[in-house]
Amino acid sequence: MNHNSQVEKSLAALLKPESIAIAGASADRGKIGSLPLQFLKKHSFSGRVYPINPNAEEIEGWKCYSSVSDVPDPIDLLVIAVSASRIPDILNDCREGQVKSALILSSGFAETGKAGAERQQQLLALAGAKGIRFVGPNSVGVVNLWSAVVPAISQVFDQTGLKPGPVAFVTQSGALGTAITAIAHEEGIGIGYFVSTGNEADLDFSDFCQFFIDDPAVTIISGYVEGIRDGAKFKQTARRAIAAGKPIVLMKVGKTDVGHDAVRSHTGALAGSDEIYEAVFKENGVVRAESIEELMDVLKIFSCYPAHSAGPGRSGRKAAVFSHSGGAGVLMADQCVKEGLELPSPSTDLREKLGQRLPSYASLQNPVDMTANVVFLPDVMCGSAYDAVRSGEYDAVMLCVNLIWRQGDALAEQLLAERRQTDGMLGVVWIAGPKEPIRKLNRQGVPVFSDPVRCVKAVAAKLKWEQSRARILETVPAELHVEAGTASKAVPDGFAAQEALLRKYGIPLAPAQLARNWEEAKEAAGRLAYPIALKLIAPGLLHKSDIGGVAVGIASEAELRQAYERLTAIQLNGIQAEGILVQQMIEDGTELFAGVKRDPVFGPVTVLGLGGIYVEILKESLIRPSPISEKQAMEMIRSARFYPLLDGARGRQKCDVPALARLLSRLSVLSVAEPVQSIDLNPIMMLPDSAIVVDYKFMFDSGRGE
Amino acid sequence: MNHNSQVEKSLAALLKPESIAIAGASADRGKIGSLPLQFLKKHSFSGRVYPINPNAEEIEGWKCYSSVSDVPDPIDLLVIAVSASRIPDILNDCREGQVKSALILSSGFAETGKAGAERQQQLLALAGAKGIRFVGPNSVGVVNLWSAVVPAISQVFDQTGLKPGPVAFVTQSGALGTAITAIAHEEGIGIGYFVSTGNEADLDFSDFCQFFIDDPAVTIISGYVEGIRDGAKFKQTARRAIAAGKPIVLMKVGKTDVGHDAVRSHTGALAGSDEIYEAVFKENGVVRAESIEELMDVLKIFSCYPAHSAGPGRSGRKAAVFSHSGGAGVLMADQCVKEGLELPSPSTDLREKLGQRLPSYASLQNPVDMTANVVFLPDVMCGSAYDAVRSGEYDAVMLCVNLIWRQGDALAEQLLAERRQTDGMLGVVWIAGPKEPIRKLNRQGVPVFSDPVRCVKAVAAKLKWEQSRARILETVPAELHVEAGTASKAVPDGFAAQEALLRKYGIPLAPAQLARNWEEAKEAAGRLAYPIALKLIAPGLLHKSDIGGVAVGIASEAELRQAYERLTAIQLNGIQAEGILVQQMIEDGTELFAGVKRDPVFGPVTVLGLGGIYVEILKESLIRPSPISEKQAMEMIRSARFYPLLDGARGRQKCDVPALARLLSRLSVLSVAEPVQSIDLNPIMMLPDSAIVVDYKFMFDSGRGE
Repeated sequence: MNHNSQVEKSLAALLKPESIAIAGASADRGKIGSLPLQFLKKHSFSGRVYPINPNAEEIEGWKCYSSVSDVPDPIDLLVIAVSASRIPDILNDCREGQVKSALILSSGFAETGKAGAERQQQLLALAGAKGIRFVGPNSVGVVNLWSAVVPAISQVFDQTGLKPGPVAFVTQSGALGTAITAIAHEEGIGIGYFVSTGNEADLDFSDFCQFFIDDPAVTIISGYVEGIRDGAKFKQTARRAIAAGKPIVLMKVGKTDVGHDAVRSHTGALAGSDEIYEAVFKENGVVRAESIEELMDVLKIFSCYPAHSAGPGRSGRKAAVFSHSGGAGVLMADQCVKEGLELPSPSTDLREKLGQRLPSYASLQNPVDMTANVVFLPDVMCGSAYDAVRSGEYDAVMLCVNLIWRQGDALAEQLLAERRQTDGMLGVVWIAGPKEPIRKLNRQGVPVFSDPVRCVKAVAAKLKWEQSRARILETVPAELHVEAGTASKAVPDGFAAQEALLRKYGIPLAPAQLARNWEEAKEAAGRLAYPIALKLIAPGLLHKSDIGGVAVGIASEAELRQAYERLTAIQLNGIQAEGILVQQMIEDGTELFAGVKRDPVFGPVTVLGLGGIYVEILKESLIRPSPISEKQAMEMIRSARFYPLLDGARGRQKCDVPALARLLSRLSVLSVAEPVQSIDLNPIMMLPDSAIVVDYKFMFDSGRGE
Repeated sequence: MNHNSQVEKSLAALLKPESIAIAGASADRGKIGSLPLQFLKKHSFSGRVYPINPNAEEIEGWKCYSSVSDVPDPIDLLVIAVSASRIPDILNDCREGQVKSALILSSGFAETGKAGAERQQQLLALAGAKGIRFVGPNSVGVVNLWSAVVPAISQVFDQTGLKPGPVAFVTQSGALGTAITAIAHEEGIGIGYFVSTGNEADLDFSDFCQFFIDDPAVTIISGYVEGIRDGAKFKQTARRAIAAGKPIVLMKVGKTDVGHDAVRSHTGALAGSDEIYEAVFKENGVVRAESIEELMDVLKIFSCYPAHSAGPGRSGRKAAVFSHSGGAGVLMADQCVKEGLELPSPSTDLREKLGQRLPSYASLQNPVDMTANVVFLPDVMCGSAYDAVRSGEYDAVMLCVNLIWRQGDALAEQLLAERRQTDGMLGVVWIAGPKEPIRKLNRQGVPVFSDPVRCVKAVAAKLKWEQSRARILETVPAELHVEAGTASKAVPDGFAAQEALLRKYGIPLAPAQLARNWEEAKEAAGRLAYPIALKLIAPGLLHKSDIGGVAVGIASEAELRQAYERLTAIQLNGIQAEGILVQQMIEDGTELFAGVKRDPVFGPVTVLGLGGIYVEILKESLIRPSPISEKQAMEMIRSARFYPLLDGARGRQKCDVPALARLLSRLSVLSVAEPVQSIDLNPIMMLPDSAIVVDYKFMFDSGRGE
């Protein structure tokens, strides 16, 4: 699928402009309006530049124009650095079709409160009328280092020598984004594009990602995210990136409630639930970094070992660790196990090769302890590690060295020589190592980490991503088995409508009948067979048991009568009960709950968890974006920590897991096809030959049940 | 309690020598035997130095001696750098009382295998006979930078300008330890002492810690650990350190089975179980770092804010976060929540103060978003953060800034000026900041971190340690309610002896009687009242139910007879059954298990967990070093994730938790007083008014039951 072509053209003009006009250009080097011009000059931008300033002749050597319309040529990118109130005049002044895209650096919009938000709406409408797509307002700049395009206001771009590379970085925080860019440069990670999306009044995070998927100079898309505006667009973008073999690596804040609230107060944007972000990321192969340093590490490994656009790379879990310090080897082995990596011993062949290089008392297990005696022999350390890489026995090899100050250059040269011969993954840990050789290695394809734990995590992240990618490329999406036009127009109202909706999607319910009088109740109980449960059904009544509206284990007609009388006598504050549900008792199963809910950003999701008292103790609920196929539902169930409970652990009965998968898949399809806000199925009884819903609730956003 | 005075004298001679002899001194600068002399010279050691070399007149300006006995003076420290086989001659040559301590750099001992281990035993015996305590063999050196004592062979000490500081670092890995020392120096963390303990044939890890507890120049003891040799000594050391207000901060590898095996193959040492290390560390206030960088961060914060030797410092959980980038504030808020820190809003007073400094649209919630407009105003950023420190409303304040290159020095100076006025804790995050101002801050008491997540973790570690310290100082140790001389001499053999032992310590057992024939069984069942359980009891029979040796829910004499016949008919491969246990059925309780076992390093520990099927899913077992008081047992129970199950969650019955605490405490006392290897109480039935042991096993090391 291709990205909307109007947006595409605007993005091309914005990111690869041949002509740039700067409204608010200043000759005063201390002013914001001067910085883009200073940087463009410093980086030797080769395109046309038009400073807009009625009171100056020229700035930084470029001729000034008194207004945008004054510029005789078409303008690929109009940079706006005037105060918020002056922007409408600038836009109104543009000639029809003159300006292809805009970057609005000015602040004073939605980030400042309600009045600002209104100003932002007006800005959007005006630019729309003029046919100008823009990034911002409140952006710190858009940078393409491949072409010396640096219309930005961050001090990071006040230095030359920033080498462009395969990473495109898109940030929703200007301050944090530029700091991350500075660290990346320091570590030898090449950022080619930098986009500060500001308030995203028009072009948003996903728009830029889409552009970078199609740009051959980019192999990694990375970003800092506080909130995605269009969940569906983001998911579709992530899928395209996976297909193209370009990892999306994100740092997303607002994980906790406190953080979530802080994002809201800070951006004024609606932030979806973090656990749903997590689910969407996981489902769509987005790598999430938990800290700036973790982000750097992941970018480093992907920069050195780009994914194959043709298809998945090695995604096994087999790793080998080499060190000259036993302690470092153990530290890394511990971390490998934590990350789910395996450490198989070298084959006889490989051991023989290593034996020829290493001292006789070296340990040729895995981790391989090369012993302190190889410290001054870079060729032995490098050769041993690359023997393992070349053997093909491992998905990743890691080499840990400490210090090596005097022979640092020699070690780096040898590693680079080996690297040129193979794309097999080697991660290097160099503790307290010399700066320059390390930067060189990072730049030329051998990732070097300062800490053993960080190296293992990065290597594991790469392998895990390849695994996700393979899984996603294989996944057959869930089919929506819904006849066209049969979806409900409104939320189903009342017991009968809700029950009918669940039945329509094939959700198995416990045998039951709604009785409107004693005769019907008696007849139903007789037909269903005792023991029986009775439940009071009334509009808006969500917590039946709290008001005594449930009776269970009814074994005879006498007990039935008694329970019926009790339930029908309950006062409901004037609400008219719909009747009494007579339900067959389903007992002795393992209780689960499942449900669907609608996230404001990402739409419907499907949830599964263990029911009963253990919910609180295990605190595990699994979430997947809807819809899911039965196969995906099986994977979801199997990934649960409580799965052994369903699978016959410790002599328990095996439950009908395929029936549960079917139920989940159907429920997920329902959540996509029908206009429900949320449904809770709780409990679902898991039995040897079925999965049966014993109770359920339909909810609106406000929490009022129906 | 004071450390053994002989060891103390040796350690003083070793760590603060006024005279150093070097056996194996070499004039060849490439040789190992030359390095200690090069370094002593480079660092301008002011004491006496005696190179031992019969073939040289002088080395590095010091006069050579042909043998140790040739040296006319007493020698505080004899450094041995000759090959392993030549060491006995050197030691034999020492005059009686001439050498006060030794450092053995030579390798070729236990680390190389069995023959080496024997050589090491002989070395120990010989040095013992000569009255010489030593560190090593296989050490890379012992360093006291306060006095330019640098007899070491690592390239790290081949540089001057290493500033000594409050950290004493003791390492069981020479390579990793020296690398860590290099990183510490780079980060501005002052290491005053460095000890590579080598194979620890004589002086061990704890000996050095003990010495540093008494050294006023040391305020933090840190180390890298693969295995502690003497668990009791280590525990006692950790307690003394807590009392003295000196945190012990360790990196311990071998967390996983793979790592554990690698330690064993690498050191040949017996490594105790990692989960017991974890329990011992926790119980005794030892801070554990999971990576080298985490170790650095913790050392940094303790270096800047030493503990008060007088008593615990602030140990609350209240933190405030200041940033000029909303995103960074959110990131830190997220991490604060993860670390269990609270982020209360500033008081009205403090908000007023901040309001006077910050722009009107700054967010004065917590995290405080000072907004991008303060970036060029170091006094505003620094003043705001210190307003919060001075307010006393927070246990810790964190300030996060990005870049600030041009005004970096100004910001550093202002922070230092404020720091001099108060000891209140401020942690600074400076993302992509300038090197020199940051190092200066670290050295002068303001800790600066490069990553927001790392800062929060370090601050939380400091507060948590203060909290542990307060708890430990308050803890009344468990009393051993055992009459002197009543402890058993041997493992209790047979059912009666085991039952008697449990009863002696007041462990509540389900009412039962061992029946030797049908009449006894019938009589017992009648007396205990039906329902009844029967269990086959035989020596060495651990898994009764696997062979059908258990019958439960027996409701009548007829059923009793049937079950009795079935159990007595079971063939036991020639072993004679002791009888049939007739036990009252204890039902409908929550099942737990508890036990004691003996760790090879740390001795007896007490264990508690949830029983039944959920064991596998929850995978939670709590471990405490024995003995524990009832109060400590209550804390242990309350810390369990399954505690809500005992506490009446979701309408369940509240169980008798104090009875469980009593049971655990008594069991822990038993494990200390009696010579048992391990006891499992499983299940323990938790009831509203009691905690009753329904079954138990006594085990030997080999797993053979008794």
